[in-house]
Amino acid sequence: MSNTSDLAPLPVVALSIEQQIVVLAQAGRAAQRVLARVDGAAKATALLSAASVLRNASAEILGANARDMTAAAANGLSGAMLDRLRLDPARLEAIAAAIEQVAVLPEPVGQVIDRSLQPNGLDLARVRVPIGLIGIIYESRPNVTADAAALCVRAGNAVLLRGGSEAVHSNRAIHAAMVTGLEQAGVPRDAVQLVPTQDRAAVGAMLTAAGLIDMIIPRGGKSLVARVQADARVPVLAHLDGINHTFVHRAADPAKAAAIALNAKMRRTGVCGSMETLLIDSAFPAPHALLEPLLAAGCELRGDGRACAIDSRILPAVSADWDCEYLDAILSVAVVDGLDAAMDHIARHGSHHTDAIVTENGEAAERFLAEVDSAIVMHNASSQFADGGEFGLGAEIGIATGRLHARGPVALEGLTTYKWLVRGQGTIRP
Amino acid sequence: MSNTSDLAPLPVVALSIEQQIVVLAQAGRAAQRVLARVDGAAKATALLSAASVLRNASAEILGANARDMTAAAANGLSGAMLDRLRLDPARLEAIAAAIEQVAVLPEPVGQVIDRSLQPNGLDLARVRVPIGLIGIIYESRPNVTADAAALCVRAGNAVLLRGGSEAVHSNRAIHAAMVTGLEQAGVPRDAVQLVPTQDRAAVGAMLTAAGLIDMIIPRGGKSLVARVQADARVPVLAHLDGINHTFVHRAADPAKAAAIALNAKMRRTGVCGSMETLLIDSAFPAPHALLEPLLAAGCELRGDGRACAIDSRILPAVSADWDCEYLDAILSVAVVDGLDAAMDHIARHGSHHTDAIVTENGEAAERFLAEVDSAIVMHNASSQFADGGEFGLGAEIGIATGRLHARGPVALEGLTTYKWLVRGQGTIRP
Repeated sequence: MSNTSDLAPLPVVALSIEQQIVVLAQAGRAAQRVLARVDGAAKATALLSAASVLRNASAEILGANARDMTAAAANGLSGAMLDRLRLDPARLEAIAAAIEQVAVLPEPVGQVIDRSLQPNGLDLARVRVPIGLIGIIYESRPNVTADAAALCVRAGNAVLLRGGSEAVHSNRAIHAAMVTGLEQAGVPRDAVQLVPTQDRAAVGAMLTAAGLIDMIIPRGGKSLVARVQADARVPVLAHLDGINHTFVHRAADPAKAAAIALNAKMRRTGVCGSMETLLIDSAFPAPHALLEPLLAAGCELRGDGRACAIDSRILPAVSADWDCEYLDAILSVAVVDGLDAAMDHIARHGSHHTDAIVTENGEAAERFLAEVDSAIVMHNASSQFADGGEFGLGAEIGIATGRLHARGPVALEGLTTYKWLVRGQGTIRP
Repeated sequence: MSNTSDLAPLPVVALSIEQQIVVLAQAGRAAQRVLARVDGAAKATALLSAASVLRNASAEILGANARDMTAAAANGLSGAMLDRLRLDPARLEAIAAAIEQVAVLPEPVGQVIDRSLQPNGLDLARVRVPIGLIGIIYESRPNVTADAAALCVRAGNAVLLRGGSEAVHSNRAIHAAMVTGLEQAGVPRDAVQLVPTQDRAAVGAMLTAAGLIDMIIPRGGKSLVARVQADARVPVLAHLDGINHTFVHRAADPAKAAAIALNAKMRRTGVCGSMETLLIDSAFPAPHALLEPLLAAGCELRGDGRACAIDSRILPAVSADWDCEYLDAILSVAVVDGLDAAMDHIARHGSHHTDAIVTENGEAAERFLAEVDSAIVMHNASSQFADGGEFGLGAEIGIATGRLHARGPVALEGLTTYKWLVRGQGTIRP
């Protein structure tokens, strides 16, 4: 600023959004190469350090969140969105505790998938390695900043976070605490980066950064996921929706069926594992007892002709109902003629997320498990179990309905790839 | 044609190329749902049947190939391309034998990856399932028609084949024999489809058929793979090139190093696993003995300044040499100062395919294996072992250098995905 030299001032060059993403991605990749050499115990220590700094920064984080909440209320955000955005001491403690849970998960990197001695004399091992740089694109929940970063780092990946603009101050405060904690324990700051600009073009630049970002994981509503899947040139791990079916077979135990149906729909209606369509075998003997607890719990039922005949409180479904993820206390109900008709319905209308059969007939159950083409297929269980924690994976980064790389709940293993280690003794190929 | 009714003639509607691909893909997906229920023994029998029909059709196939060869010669194809296109009785027998080898590989579908009983009472299993519909885009080698189809079908997938126009008659004859054989053993014809049109727009339509084709595998030269990777909206399993390094560490055994270097480069120069750059530790005591066998075998060496000083027959390299996949009897040679400099060179110039270290120092070997980020990393072995058969996988569909789904040689396992089977006892989530 001051005229201390005769040199011309340096030109100020504004980077385009695309260039900013390239710079961030290159820094992330460089940090990842360092992180890849940090062992499991040190990564765990670094995450515990991050959780500790986060706890100590609670006043700053809650203050930042209050700014976001004020702006969001002024912008007329809905009550549900305000609730997703809101932090309080209990929620912040839950975020710190979640980081600590990720810290103590078993180390995935270096795990030997298989190893063999080949006839050609080579000792061959496939071992898990980090993927590289993961991009996370998410909406208003500030806890994703910490959760996703912890899982990525635990698996040895760098992460580039792009949160929603409504949570910008909360995300920055959480991010600042995390990287301070990580850095104190030897993990490079750039292993976890938050895209600084709120320009929406940054999302497009991330989605097309093939070769710089190895995988994109969207976390948020259907419109976000749809946009990411449509525009991405980088591999995407996600599910668009969970149009989950429960088929109550003629040989179902009526009490189990009623309990499972009520739980699958009403335990939490807003989760991706909730049942959205109930298929009732026309030969199932107790359809009214199956639906009564749902109606009593306040669930709106929308049925086909035969379903509507079960109870007068059931509204007629329209064709769009069979392809709808309500995420609400609404359920479509169809009566089908047996197992094959149920599987046909699921093949036409399902989203390959989680589908279940209720039956005491083992042969029908095994056919359903084998033939229904969904990431998760269940027998005599509630679809609400579709969750990495319930699957014993620890925390999950999301649920994937794509067919490649990882399917169903994705946790640390899904955040790794593998390489082949080949050990010879001067071995040459004839 | 004849005027046998008063009805107006049916309109003839020409499908666009995109619509033709949709029709083929939908037929393939329908056939795959049938194939998914065919057990391993029946799939093996079907492939043996395909091999048998192929053998019996040798006269037709060789006749079709002769037509392709005549046209190719008239079109001025190079000798190497003519050789790739050419079939003879021995090559046809090799194709049939390769199908039989795939037939008897262990069944991948249904294999249990892991299984556990969770504290919530759920019995949880991950089992391998087919991916769905695979698209194969390939060039002049007609054996790919049979090889790729056999591997896809063995893993329960349908396949849509798009071969090179120069091999159109050969491919049609091989395809006709295969599907006849498959169908005689109960596998639907549409499980293996050959795109009938030679219009190049068909490739573009396949590459963008997201949701209809689950994965594209290009088989051919670099320009084909580059085009597929650039344009595909469907996941691609491939490698663009194999810029493979062998690093001769200061503690390498000179005799092993010389044998490995000669084999890695000269055993076959045109394969993707061949060495393209030799890195010599400046402290390695026998550089001349390392290079002499290569020079004696007729390999052109292009060196950096220090490499050129080893032998006067070494030509000076230009910067493009370090990023070049020669696929020929040409090798770039650099002298580097130790392990870290070698790994830096590989990080800058490698293609993440196959890189090797030669050393008797176990610590250096383990660092190289851990830190070099390639699909295949070798110690004291020739990079020419980069091959699914040598890895004990049976036949391979290709080698992948991407980071997701499958990496390195890809065989039957890489042609499957998995799903989660969850078995409860009326289990509901609290």
